[in-house]
Amino acid sequence: MDKIEHIGIAVKDLEVSNSLFAKLLGVQHYKTEEVVSEGVRTSFFKSGPNKVELLAATNPESPIAKFLEKKGEGIHHIAFAVEDIVAEIARLKEEGFVVLNETPKKGADNKLVAFLHPKGTNGVLVELCQEIKAG
Amino acid sequence: MDKIEHIGIAVKDLEVSNSLFAKLLGVQHYKTEEVVSEGVRTSFFKSGPNKVELLAATNPESPIAKFLEKKGEGIHHIAFAVEDIVAEIARLKEEGFVVLNETPKKGADNKLVAFLHPKGTNGVLVELCQEIKAG
Repeated sequence: MDKIEHIGIAVKDLEVSNSLFAKLLGVQHYKTEEVVSEGVRTSFFKSGPNKVELLAATNPESPIAKFLEKKGEGIHHIAFAVEDIVAEIARLKEEGFVVLNETPKKGADNKLVAFLHPKGTNGVLVELCQEIKAG
Repeated sequence: MDKIEHIGIAVKDLEVSNSLFAKLLGVQHYKTEEVVSEGVRTSFFKSGPNKVELLAATNPESPIAKFLEKKGEGIHHIAFAVEDIVAEIARLKEEGFVVLNETPKKGADNKLVAFLHPKGTNGVLVELCQEIKAG
């Protein structure tokens, strides 16, 4: 785990929260992106070597819609950068962690991602993410 | 906000979670520290330029005991590194954020810290922290 790549925060209204987090972090978001397969619209802010990702649901079946219904707005997950996601998934499975998707999937922000089940990580939804390199 | 300084995670048993997060992060914690005024014992892990802080309650009145009772184990706060915490508190107040302690207090890991009220930050408990420099 090379660093905290980003923190994901579930929000109800992406535009309202983009404005709020711009005030908080002192910078504007640098992109928005929809991940259709996950039913989310996201926006990203830089904080030095790290990012803050805001996530809003695009439909009622979205995991973010369900999270908001159950817990309200707040921190949804923490993502760690890894060099080799396949090797890291294998290492974590060996250590006894439950990987929600053993085959990495395409996430936002040009990443291959995998999630660990929060029941095995003290209630924390952990994302692994590896930058997709061109070529 | 220079970077994500750390993520704070509330846990029930610090020893059990130290072992779990060592497996997750692939490194041992590098210190434990008790903050008597907050009723917490903490441990810290490095993840590149960032840290993961585990927090366990030392008494039933601790904010962490109350968090665990209400929400269970999970992410408790996100801390951003700032160069000048007094200036940052003033800037954020001006922007309309509610600062829980307007006078920075001594936190764990040699830091001056202040917290923002989560009602003003989409449910996220935000900590500002400034390294205390010697001399």
